[in-house]
Amino acid sequence: MKVAIIFGSKSDTEKMRGAAKCLKEFGINYSAHILSAHRVPEELEKTLSKLEVEGYDVIIAGAGLAAHLPGVIASKTILPVIGVPIEAAFNGMDALLSIVQMPKSIPVATVGLNNSYNAGMLAVQMLSIKSPELKEKLLAFRKNMKEQFISENSLGVEL
Amino acid sequence: MKVAIIFGSKSDTEKMRGAAKCLKEFGINYSAHILSAHRVPEELEKTLSKLEVEGYDVIIAGAGLAAHLPGVIASKTILPVIGVPIEAAFNGMDALLSIVQMPKSIPVATVGLNNSYNAGMLAVQMLSIKSPELKEKLLAFRKNMKEQFISENSLGVEL
Amino acid sequence: MKVAIIFGSKSDTEKMRGAAKCLKEFGINYSAHILSAHRVPEELEKTLSKLEVEGYDVIIAGAGLAAHLPGVIASKTILPVIGVPIEAAFNGMDALLSIVQMPKSIPVATVGLNNSYNAGMLAVQMLSIKSPELKEKLLAFRKNMKEQFISENSLGVEL
Amino acid sequence: MKVAIIFGSKSDTEKMRGAAKCLKEFGINYSAHILSAHRVPEELEKTLSKLEVEGYDVIIAGAGLAAHLPGVIASKTILPVIGVPIEAAFNGMDALLSIVQMPKSIPVATVGLNNSYNAGMLAVQMLSIKSPELKEKLLAFRKNMKEQFISENSLGVEL
Amino acid sequence: MKVAIIFGSKSDTEKMRGAAKCLKEFGINYSAHILSAHRVPEELEKTLSKLEVEGYDVIIAGAGLAAHLPGVIASKTILPVIGVPIEAAFNGMDALLSIVQMPKSIPVATVGLNNSYNAGMLAVQMLSIKSPELKEKLLAFRKNMKEQFISENSLGVEL
Amino acid sequence: MKVAIIFGSKSDTEKMRGAAKCLKEFGINYSAHILSAHRVPEELEKTLSKLEVEGYDVIIAGAGLAAHLPGVIASKTILPVIGVPIEAAFNGMDALLSIVQMPKSIPVATVGLNNSYNAGMLAVQMLSIKSPELKEKLLAFRKNMKEQFISENSLGVEL
Amino acid sequence: MKVAIIFGSKSDTEKMRGAAKCLKEFGINYSAHILSAHRVPEELEKTLSKLEVEGYDVIIAGAGLAAHLPGVIASKTILPVIGVPIEAAFNGMDALLSIVQMPKSIPVATVGLNNSYNAGMLAVQMLSIKSPELKEKLLAFRKNMKEQFISENSLGVEL
Amino acid sequence: MKVAIIFGSKSDTEKMRGAAKCLKEFGINYSAHILSAHRVPEELEKTLSKLEVEGYDVIIAGAGLAAHLPGVIASKTILPVIGVPIEAAFNGMDALLSIVQMPKSIPVATVGLNNSYNAGMLAVQMLSIKSPELKEKLLAFRKNMKEQFISENSLGVEL
Repeated sequence: MKVAIIFGSKSDTEKMRGAAKCLKEFGINYSAHILSAHRVPEELEKTLSKLEVEGYDVIIAGAGLAAHLPGVIASKTILPVIGVPIEAAFNGMDALLSIVQMPKSIPVATVGLNNSYNAGMLAVQMLSIKSPELKEKLLAFRKNMKEQFISENSLGVEL
Repeated sequence: MKVAIIFGSKSDTEKMRGAAKCLKEFGINYSAHILSAHRVPEELEKTLSKLEVEGYDVIIAGAGLAAHLPGVIASKTILPVIGVPIEAAFNGMDALLSIVQMPKSIPVATVGLNNSYNAGMLAVQMLSIKSPELKEKLLAFRKNMKEQFISENSLGVEL
Repeated sequence: MKVAIIFGSKSDTEKMRGAAKCLKEFGINYSAHILSAHRVPEELEKTLSKLEVEGYDVIIAGAGLAAHLPGVIASKTILPVIGVPIEAAFNGMDALLSIVQMPKSIPVATVGLNNSYNAGMLAVQMLSIKSPELKEKLLAFRKNMKEQFISENSLGVEL
Repeated sequence: MKVAIIFGSKSDTEKMRGAAKCLKEFGINYSAHILSAHRVPEELEKTLSKLEVEGYDVIIAGAGLAAHLPGVIASKTILPVIGVPIEAAFNGMDALLSIVQMPKSIPVATVGLNNSYNAGMLAVQMLSIKSPELKEKLLAFRKNMKEQFISENSLGVEL
Repeated sequence: MKVAIIFGSKSDTEKMRGAAKCLKEFGINYSAHILSAHRVPEELEKTLSKLEVEGYDVIIAGAGLAAHLPGVIASKTILPVIGVPIEAAFNGMDALLSIVQMPKSIPVATVGLNNSYNAGMLAVQMLSIKSPELKEKLLAFRKNMKEQFISENSLGVEL
Repeated sequence: MKVAIIFGSKSDTEKMRGAAKCLKEFGINYSAHILSAHRVPEELEKTLSKLEVEGYDVIIAGAGLAAHLPGVIASKTILPVIGVPIEAAFNGMDALLSIVQMPKSIPVATVGLNNSYNAGMLAVQMLSIKSPELKEKLLAFRKNMKEQFISENSLGVEL
Repeated sequence: MKVAIIFGSKSDTEKMRGAAKCLKEFGINYSAHILSAHRVPEELEKTLSKLEVEGYDVIIAGAGLAAHLPGVIASKTILPVIGVPIEAAFNGMDALLSIVQMPKSIPVATVGLNNSYNAGMLAVQMLSIKSPELKEKLLAFRKNMKEQFISENSLGVEL
Repeated sequence: MKVAIIFGSKSDTEKMRGAAKCLKEFGINYSAHILSAHRVPEELEKTLSKLEVEGYDVIIAGAGLAAHLPGVIASKTILPVIGVPIEAAFNGMDALLSIVQMPKSIPVATVGLNNSYNAGMLAVQMLSIKSPELKEKLLAFRKNMKEQFISENSLGVEL
């Protein structure tokens, strides 16, 4: 099981780190690629072909502004594509709408603004469809998340 | 492989039909449920438990206004949840933001406004991770979509 | 008379302090709880049951992003729920719309962005329906607010 | 227990009817008043004084455009004021923001766009703080709402 | 000829200074008042009555959030009221819409966000309707503005 | 006392009629002109020069889309310019922002969306600065508006 | 001199007709193509290559929703690309932002919502850079537009 | 081949530098002018006349707030006008809509927010219609951009 993380500019590295963090927590292999739909469309296509050949299962794509990258990828693969809108102007509304409003038949699974961690989590959930082991890990993660939440807040809060 | 389609009101039936249409085209079993996160939260939980027991793989949830349904479902299952924002006020911006802006660790895979067909397609793509047969169907669908597009527009357009 | 203040993350503590401040000014008992609708839904339900048993009268809930907390609480209690949208992305528009746009029959009494003080005040006003003493305090508060305003600005302002 | 429903123009009558409908369902006395904060501010004040004298408990105020009515009322009474944004321009965003964004100390309990029914429900919830009988009615309403929802959708939905 | 500048909080003083600056440049008498429509409505009314008695000609009112002040003033005077939206949340969109979207018959002359200087200028233009001398000053101001603009930029700009 | 009403296209005639209606009610002379800032800028300038020569006091300008007309007029006259945003796309937000957000020193007195009647009223208020008679008429108008409002709603409203 | 008009769906034909209408008025050759960036990306590339070989000078591209078409074309050609946002959801704001917010080095010349006529006009202006004859036509067009405007409105307007 | 860069205030110099940078890279002559549509309309017209006489081919205009400059220029020349929305309030939405929403027949070629570099690039693309040499440079630029992108990111990225 392998996930590719693609984004268009080195400057988005920090914002996309959450996706890798989540995948690491679940022991999922991933590779990261800086590729722009507008600047190096041919390289993007080459990489997408390679990813399919190498048996990747899910693609996470992050982009800002007129964030075409996730949609362009979705048009060239049948793998599920998860889009991460990255805030760069207009509070990120440009990126959100450019990613989520895909036409009929070519969806992008959009997550929250700058929320690449959730893109990783969604990839894990998708992969767990075929992996009972991963399903167990997800159940454990949720259980752990709850326990940690409760423990962290067990003393209540002083207002 | 089974997909559940959940939405909160009979009045959304027409807008959610696209999800079923897509799943039918790919021969995926699905069931449809009208369940409101706010009006019948206990029924929703019961249904979600049943869906997990019955081995459902993906949940599609459509909602308008303060569209909590997809997120509430996502908080109660580890199955991937696909959210369909349905336009009811503020051009649907309320539904889009209520669905997509989920907190860390509990994603909802959001598709475009009123675009339940794409929710179905995204479910198919997720399921194809474990089904080579479905992958073939997706490739055939894309090929067919292209051929049909080309054939429909082969005579060009008169402006 | 008792008010519960609930919010989903320690990081919102400062923004929710206003609610407690206001309740203290009016001598209203309150308790504060960090509970997430998405991360610990079972804990949330347990706490809500306990609050009802213990005779709480009003619940104040603050949340950001896809701010489901107030609405989820409202779906599980008949106590009046006051929602405080907390700014975290999109200028807080996501939180405002997620909180205020509740469906028919399950309202959330929404106050202004980050304005938890007003949530406290609204709780006091609600409680004053049954408490003539609190009504007197509210009248005194208003009188005092006016006198203080006038005194603070009595020297006029130099532009 | 009495609730006043105030709005600024006869043309809003249909949109405000939901508040009365809800109050009737719960057997709450109410009176309806057409009064504009901008056109007849003196009449508004007179009516507000009368309402206080007559022991009204809650005020519901609906308004569109620069919807000052709920806030102006809130500045002149210590009764809880529930605001209903009515859509007239800009998708109702002008009314929502004009009503919800009240300054510190003078809250308006805002409900969803055009959702006067929920204003009625919120009034009932507020009144139930002092009325155990009304609390019972609310519990019965919720129970009934759930049963009706389940019964209406018991045959499932055909997609 | 006299202009009153009214705003709701000492914290807006810096943002309202532009109005005074402009009026000073044209030698117009003005007075400044901190008065809140919501906190001290009675004081506001008293001041407005006094302003009318003292022969004020124009009122400038600045406000943020649910910026009712200019509209409330407009409902209580026949003097022209100029509204200055002040940015405090939602990029100032709440203040702009709350000020500009006044109902039929009670206008507020709205200027740009935080642009109190322009409120001063608009007041001068209104006053110049009755004062040929002020008209001359406005023509001189414009002439001077142009000359200064040209002189400041006469050396061109190096890009 | 004379007011000019300018707008850019015959198709806006109905939306601008309110300005004329209001001016007629107050017995103010006005002339109406269809002139586009973008299509006939020279004609616009000629007309503006003529208006100044003929002693016009106020200019009302209505425009939609990138509604430059009021601002362009304001840059070429020292008369007060009242801008009416007309809805044609984006709910009229384009027109509102294009009109109200004028730079320092060149204000446009902006009224509500499609609300040309209020532009007329604002013109009357401006003119009343120099005309005690008009001030009387405004007071009578307000008095009459109140009486009519009260009489129309004297029977209350049945909800 | 040749212009290509590309759009993604037959359903946009009427909204794109304005571009052809304008080009016809100026006697510019054009061809129209229905091609989707997401559904037939390979066909789009083939057509773009052909257009370059055949010496096209400008490309006009219209799209709605996540309107990637103009930007994707711009990434694959050095010809100037003119983008027409077409309204399909969110008042067309999704299309506008998806088209105009292109990253550094790959611009799309964006025109107003649904305003394909202006895309045609912009193409004519671009072509006139190399064609003195076309420049003459543009001057004649403007002259004629002005005369027609003046003649159409010569009788003034009755308000 | 010559391009004029016009903007309304020295304070926008840094944001407009990108246009000059791009033009320099392509060896295109340009001149920069600070000229305001509202403050020095006559100077603007004089400069525009001079630019036409001197054979300028393209005009780039940057503006913020009610950004009329590009549209006013477009109304006075038949040269293609490129508009750069500059962020000053409302996230730059005011400038974007004021520039892009031009009426029929008078387009402004709008680029992304603060993206003056792309305005330069669009000017180069327009000029390349008549200059095969410039077309070669554009092809080389694209090739170089791709190589540089690939080389910069050849080592991949560590997430």
